[in-house]
Amino acid sequence: MEGEETRRKKEKGGKGKQGTRDVSSKQMMIREKVLSVIVSCFERHNAVTIDTPVFELKVPFARYLAMNNITNIKRYHIGKVYRRDNPVMTRGRYREFCQCDFDIAGQYDPMIPDAECLRIVYEILRELDLGDFRIKVNDRRILDGMSAVCGVPDEKFRTICSTVDKLDKMPWEDVKSELINIKGLSEDVADQIGEYVSMQGGLDLAEKLLQDPKLSQNKQACAGLNDMKLLFVYLQCFKITDKVVFDLSLARGLDYYTGVIYEAVLCQTLQPEVPVAGDRAGVNAGSVGSVAGGGRYDGLVGQCDSKGKTVPCVGLSIGIERILCILEQKAKTSAEKIRTTKTQVLVASAQKNLLEQRLKLTNELWDAGIKAEVLYKKNPKLLTQLQHCEETGIPLVAILGEQEIQNGVVKLRNVATREEVDVSKDQVVEEIKRRIINL
Amino acid sequence: MEGEETRRKKEKGGKGKQGTRDVSSKQMMIREKVLSVIVSCFERHNAVTIDTPVFELKVPFARYLAMNNITNIKRYHIGKVYRRDNPVMTRGRYREFCQCDFDIAGQYDPMIPDAECLRIVYEILRELDLGDFRIKVNDRRILDGMSAVCGVPDEKFRTICSTVDKLDKMPWEDVKSELINIKGLSEDVADQIGEYVSMQGGLDLAEKLLQDPKLSQNKQACAGLNDMKLLFVYLQCFKITDKVVFDLSLARGLDYYTGVIYEAVLCQTLQPEVPVAGDRAGVNAGSVGSVAGGGRYDGLVGQCDSKGKTVPCVGLSIGIERILCILEQKAKTSAEKIRTTKTQVLVASAQKNLLEQRLKLTNELWDAGIKAEVLYKKNPKLLTQLQHCEETGIPLVAILGEQEIQNGVVKLRNVATREEVDVSKDQVVEEIKRRIINL
Repeated sequence: MEGEETRRKKEKGGKGKQGTRDVSSKQMMIREKVLSVIVSCFERHNAVTIDTPVFELKVPFARYLAMNNITNIKRYHIGKVYRRDNPVMTRGRYREFCQCDFDIAGQYDPMIPDAECLRIVYEILRELDLGDFRIKVNDRRILDGMSAVCGVPDEKFRTICSTVDKLDKMPWEDVKSELINIKGLSEDVADQIGEYVSMQGGLDLAEKLLQDPKLSQNKQACAGLNDMKLLFVYLQCFKITDKVVFDLSLARGLDYYTGVIYEAVLCQTLQPEVPVAGDRAGVNAGSVGSVAGGGRYDGLVGQCDSKGKTVPCVGLSIGIERILCILEQKAKTSAEKIRTTKTQVLVASAQKNLLEQRLKLTNELWDAGIKAEVLYKKNPKLLTQLQHCEETGIPLVAILGEQEIQNGVVKLRNVATREEVDVSKDQVVEEIKRRIINL
Repeated sequence: MEGEETRRKKEKGGKGKQGTRDVSSKQMMIREKVLSVIVSCFERHNAVTIDTPVFELKVPFARYLAMNNITNIKRYHIGKVYRRDNPVMTRGRYREFCQCDFDIAGQYDPMIPDAECLRIVYEILRELDLGDFRIKVNDRRILDGMSAVCGVPDEKFRTICSTVDKLDKMPWEDVKSELINIKGLSEDVADQIGEYVSMQGGLDLAEKLLQDPKLSQNKQACAGLNDMKLLFVYLQCFKITDKVVFDLSLARGLDYYTGVIYEAVLCQTLQPEVPVAGDRAGVNAGSVGSVAGGGRYDGLVGQCDSKGKTVPCVGLSIGIERILCILEQKAKTSAEKIRTTKTQVLVASAQKNLLEQRLKLTNELWDAGIKAEVLYKKNPKLLTQLQHCEETGIPLVAILGEQEIQNGVVKLRNVATREEVDVSKDQVVEEIKRRIINL
């Protein structure tokens, strides 16, 4: 929630002239656009939305499945989450975050839903136009296997992984020194790990590692590598292998992930102003450029179920805060206007005393499901109406004039090209529909 | 938020077989559908959405406008609101409500935005298919004027109105008795009020009252009646005069409404199981059958502004809880299935070993923005795939078969009619797009 002080600051920026928006509502438009891209994608992938209570911070989805005895579902959830602004503060002040989750629960053939999750991350990042990106993938079982064959003691697995995961922020030398001096590995073990975690590739790398004399002896690793091969076959079908990298240094969310894990990073990124407290795959947390993450968690539902019945799950989270931060900075430096509404047509008039005609045509457009608008003025000037379209990005104007009404036509004007064409009154709704689809 | 007990109850109902959903997620689907109808309508009417903090129960929108110095905006807000479950309880337990608000702020020509608000209520109730309904309208100034010419002392205006407003729940005799015995009016004054508040009509009634020997002497009443006439002219343009009734007994929200007021009521309705704590126009409160309400509040922003700068506003609220209650009961008694997803096409296969081809075609459909799905099975039976469409309401199937692949075609099947047609592989995405628009 927004404090009194923030509001006062905003007040300065906001001079609410007709057709303009203050800074805060421009930010809202960016947020709106981002959420609409994400929701459209989740719905294109046929997810339903389930409301899980906002104050329940711990694995609400898994709990929901267990409690309601659901064995298969594809759902998304866009919601406000409240986290402590600053954990050090004694007076609990919660900051509001927006979290976008997508999950597929159910017993299915291997790697098909997992591949779809990666495709979803790809579609969203492509459509948000955040610049080039990569989706790193790895598998919990490969990490387990690698760790075992390198001679890492079981009890050190987690802590070793959390050091390895810093490879996106620090050079190998520093990671190695931490592994030896802080985590207590021998130099030999650290070097063996170093060899593996420097590896990046795709299907080829999975195949190569299946031939690796050490790894190929580890059952867990082989299972992970075979699934990784299968994953890449499906990613080829989804045409996204140019953006996905099998990266053995990715080691996140190991508290609950059991299979494939992934993290999307932007190739060029801005440092976030405020680091956000951690969540799934550290999407909002410290990882440089990380904007999405997820993985397979087959054990979580069973932990929440009183009878321990398991439901395999794979899912992803999109880190909205960082994306907004980037898009807001982009919007500041860009001349391009952000549309604040989705209006498709303005119904305008060329002369006075045509308000009722404007309202009637607007009403017909609403009935046809078209986002139509009139200026709330009895006798607006045509120029004012056209300027309104240019300022707010409305692409089409339907102009009513006395001459046109006599001739039984409506003039359609393309705002960008300024082309005008007369369309018969009976045909105008259909013609506007047709044009909107093609715009 | 939902309690432990509610969850346990749900558990019984939910046997999550493949293709089925438990009760709770069916409820979610209804909620989803209702919200999507409402949001689509708000967006068709070109509103932006602004996030106002959820815990701020008092007029957050007016405050937002004042704080951010916004003079014109059309916005909607769908949000969770937390209200005390039971105000008598000492331990504050908040219940979660969903509130749908739409507001138009700005200095515009009279009654145009007001008419649009009524059109929005109409569009939403029509599309939600809740049965026949009426939208009652009145005007604060007409109530003020009526009260004055009948001889009600100023200080009794509010309390008299709140008794009058009970006319939808009790007969005039009881209302009259309350006016006299509890509110202290003389029988003569009560009878004069009784004459006015029994009046219902449209444009004709507004014209008739402008000729009324008493009311026509009151400036406030005349201003309200002239605006009512204008409103009905615009409502005629919007073709909704058959659903809108000018009703002098409507007297709600007088704490802040300054002009037109309205309330939508269902003609046949179920009593809500739990009455909901009051909000704008009592949408969720006790009024029989009330599902939406609103009005003009030109003074509220000024009260929140440090310099008292006013921004005229008109808005509406939709009472989700009651609508859900009705639709859920309808769903229970109806054989009609509720679709749980919006999937438009299932990509199916007629033989084994076609998973990759299925994934590739699905991917092309996603790229074209189509809501497409495959079963997450390597080799599903065709019958299983077709049954999945029938169970979940997917209207179209694209079937890949060996023969079809050899012939360079895809078979499109209409699930409802079972008609099948072969379409060239190159044309199939366009053909599916075309069919989806026409479905």
